[in-house]
Amino acid sequence: MFDRLPEPVPLDGDRLDRAIARLRADLLDAQYSVLEQGRAPVVVLIAGVAGAGKGVLVNTLNEWMDPRHIRTCAYGPRNEAERQRPHMWRYWQALPQRGRTSIIFEGWYSEAIHARVERRMKRRAFEHSLHEIRRFEHMLAMEGAVVLKFWLHLDAGEQRARFRSLERNKATRWRVTSNDWHEHRRHKRLCKVAAEAISGSDAPHARWHLVDARDADHCELTVGRTLLRALRAATSVRPAAPAPALPPAGVAGTPAPLEAVRADKPMTKAQYEPELEALQGRLNMLLRDEKFAHRSLAVVFEGMDAAGKGGSIRRITRALDARHYSVHPVSAPSEHERSYPWLWRFWRDVPHDGSVALFDRSWYGRVLVERVEGFAAEADWQRAYDEINAFEQEWAEHGVIVCKFWLEVSTDEQLRRFNERSRTRFKRFKITPDDWRNREKWAQYVPAVQDMLARTHTEMSPWQVVWSDDKYRARLAILGELCARLESALG
Amino acid sequence: MFDRLPEPVPLDGDRLDRAIARLRADLLDAQYSVLEQGRAPVVVLIAGVAGAGKGVLVNTLNEWMDPRHIRTCAYGPRNEAERQRPHMWRYWQALPQRGRTSIIFEGWYSEAIHARVERRMKRRAFEHSLHEIRRFEHMLAMEGAVVLKFWLHLDAGEQRARFRSLERNKATRWRVTSNDWHEHRRHKRLCKVAAEAISGSDAPHARWHLVDARDADHCELTVGRTLLRALRAATSVRPAAPAPALPPAGVAGTPAPLEAVRADKPMTKAQYEPELEALQGRLNMLLRDEKFAHRSLAVVFEGMDAAGKGGSIRRITRALDARHYSVHPVSAPSEHERSYPWLWRFWRDVPHDGSVALFDRSWYGRVLVERVEGFAAEADWQRAYDEINAFEQEWAEHGVIVCKFWLEVSTDEQLRRFNERSRTRFKRFKITPDDWRNREKWAQYVPAVQDMLARTHTEMSPWQVVWSDDKYRARLAILGELCARLESALG
Repeated sequence: MFDRLPEPVPLDGDRLDRAIARLRADLLDAQYSVLEQGRAPVVVLIAGVAGAGKGVLVNTLNEWMDPRHIRTCAYGPRNEAERQRPHMWRYWQALPQRGRTSIIFEGWYSEAIHARVERRMKRRAFEHSLHEIRRFEHMLAMEGAVVLKFWLHLDAGEQRARFRSLERNKATRWRVTSNDWHEHRRHKRLCKVAAEAISGSDAPHARWHLVDARDADHCELTVGRTLLRALRAATSVRPAAPAPALPPAGVAGTPAPLEAVRADKPMTKAQYEPELEALQGRLNMLLRDEKFAHRSLAVVFEGMDAAGKGGSIRRITRALDARHYSVHPVSAPSEHERSYPWLWRFWRDVPHDGSVALFDRSWYGRVLVERVEGFAAEADWQRAYDEINAFEQEWAEHGVIVCKFWLEVSTDEQLRRFNERSRTRFKRFKITPDDWRNREKWAQYVPAVQDMLARTHTEMSPWQVVWSDDKYRARLAILGELCARLESALG
Repeated sequence: MFDRLPEPVPLDGDRLDRAIARLRADLLDAQYSVLEQGRAPVVVLIAGVAGAGKGVLVNTLNEWMDPRHIRTCAYGPRNEAERQRPHMWRYWQALPQRGRTSIIFEGWYSEAIHARVERRMKRRAFEHSLHEIRRFEHMLAMEGAVVLKFWLHLDAGEQRARFRSLERNKATRWRVTSNDWHEHRRHKRLCKVAAEAISGSDAPHARWHLVDARDADHCELTVGRTLLRALRAATSVRPAAPAPALPPAGVAGTPAPLEAVRADKPMTKAQYEPELEALQGRLNMLLRDEKFAHRSLAVVFEGMDAAGKGGSIRRITRALDARHYSVHPVSAPSEHERSYPWLWRFWRDVPHDGSVALFDRSWYGRVLVERVEGFAAEADWQRAYDEINAFEQEWAEHGVIVCKFWLEVSTDEQLRRFNERSRTRFKRFKITPDDWRNREKWAQYVPAVQDMLARTHTEMSPWQVVWSDDKYRARLAILGELCARLESALG
């Protein structure tokens, strides 16, 4: 793969200066056009062999363009926060807002490639990693991102010569580290693994560009011009052909079972309270289990207004230590949140190891309210099912126990609760004109809910439908289910 | 202190229910008023003895008010990210936006008090901690925050009785942990230390409220009513009497020395380049020193437009590993940033241990552009000198090496650079109408700069004035100074 790169043709000083001056001006114009349009986030990934000048290239791009709108994200070994969260979390944090640019230095590919080169990662895991990356880049492309990937190449002889020449000069000797020589000894294997990664992840919506890095000027000009073309294309017309659909991620959906807690007579408070206290105690003990320090719990509550989501959450939090949980009420995304890929805001709230995240509504808004109200185009909410399955799978693979509850309330019971809320002064804030409006759209929610349950009920993160006209029984069913899931997960 | 608390008068069921219903409705109204006004952030701190019901109280407040506008922040032992940053960093992250509420559960007091109770903290350090907290709360009050602090008290006998009664019931036994009994054995010492902390930090702008926690209903009603009064006061009139000024923090300022690099003849490129490379090498080696893993470096660049801030930063970053530094270009705060105390946005960018943060303009904008342009009221920028000194002191005390450079450029040289920028197509983005406008205000910046240098030149974070008409000499002086500061800090 790497021996067929076009030979760099060095430019003489004067022509080079003129070419750079023109490129800089053009790049700045293009950067500002993309920024002003505010539609496409730009992701530039820089990888390659040691000594190829990746760091210098990153500096140059920052110098050529306006660095105030560029974010450079460089990655080393994972820190504690990164180790305690799903694999792709740290890369989600690096995504730029629409119109802005992130330069990813030694990002998602480098991590997988180096692990594989050092044989810290088996072939299967490496391929799974590539699969995860493909999904990630596909998602970026579908969100309108410009994704550019550069691999800077030097062959083994050129790499050695470059290190030697730097070492001979006292003033530049510090630029060569023992790690560089370590990488040099693995040059052949690196090229082999990199070639696998590159050919396994080159796609029309996320192209790889291989660059001969022997001549620094040629390398920078090539990268700069490629970037320029991509920026110009992004501002001209909206890309006509969307990325092709990926095969659905995760396990095929099977219809969700309806929790069999429908009963004729409502439960009394006297029956409910001791059971509640016992379940809270059981839940508390499970979360204190030392095995839970390496797991985490995400609990999703969805349901029509007044289905009892908030009340159920409070019955859970009373069993928890305030240091170990957070509640995330989810409403419409802010303007700031809308400037990122739609799942971005939920990646912020992933529970770290040993903690619990409770979601009062969630990412399922994409296929519920956004579908029903038309806030998302059909193509966007249609692809959301797969995106959600992939998203939950990544969480689950890290060790997050994902529990999802659909709280099923009848229209009669909802009406009764709405009226009660309107009558009680301190509950009035819970009832707004929106709630009445949503009630009128009940019929439109029914197919949306059915599709959601059918298409996102996976083995790793199954739905539980809870009949919740009887609040007490619903809460006990939820607590019981949480305990059961934890018991099975913690062995 | 704790034995003079008023005896709780228990309310009977019916009167209690009515009182709670009224309080909830009033609290909600008050919460919405504060929110709509969007002026005052609300900080509610909950501390007290084990078993007093702090966790239940936090849940109750979230139930009584609209939890979507409340953030509950609970603190345990510090994680890696928290250990790698200055002490107060994690509490800055917890501050609410104006109009919103943060409930701080076991926050800044609990941490100091428990460390002192367990004798992990000496008296001197404890007093220093209290001093730091006073400064922090003073800052909050000056920023318009409502600060409420509650201490929930039980005497030793009541505490024991409560634990015993919970333990007797199988369903509630899990609520008592071995840590609770551990705290019980230290009850007397805890009360002594807490009394010191409370009397040392009670202030009109950040009052302590001691609450007898024997009766849970009384406790919740008392806290709720106190909160209600505070919220109502916040929305009525703007507090007339501001908090009194604190004694200035940090070391007294002495005038900054002018770097003696003013020379008749500009340096040539041939003289400059080998020196630059050598200094970059020296800096690189210093940052690789294993001792630097426990320190960090913050470099501030201030100066008139075109003084050479960006160019100096690039000469530094070329010596660094991209994984270990970040550049923060500082411009006017966004609306979101303005909704927090003004220093908040800079606390996000504190370098963690082992890393470097470079600021292209900084928090000094408060006493430069905000003063000159009238964006900050005089009272606000006047108090900023002390706030900045305290802020930098907290960073320095953690181990951040704070280097501040004022790049002094002459009006003639600035004009020459402006004209050059206008002529070069790829530099035109660096020159805007604002730059010309600022140039006209040069005379107004002179006293602002003089005051800044005189009042924020501290022993821990001194200013270096760099004569920068000669770019080459300026860059070398800056790199040399950074190396010298690092060499002295790393011993």
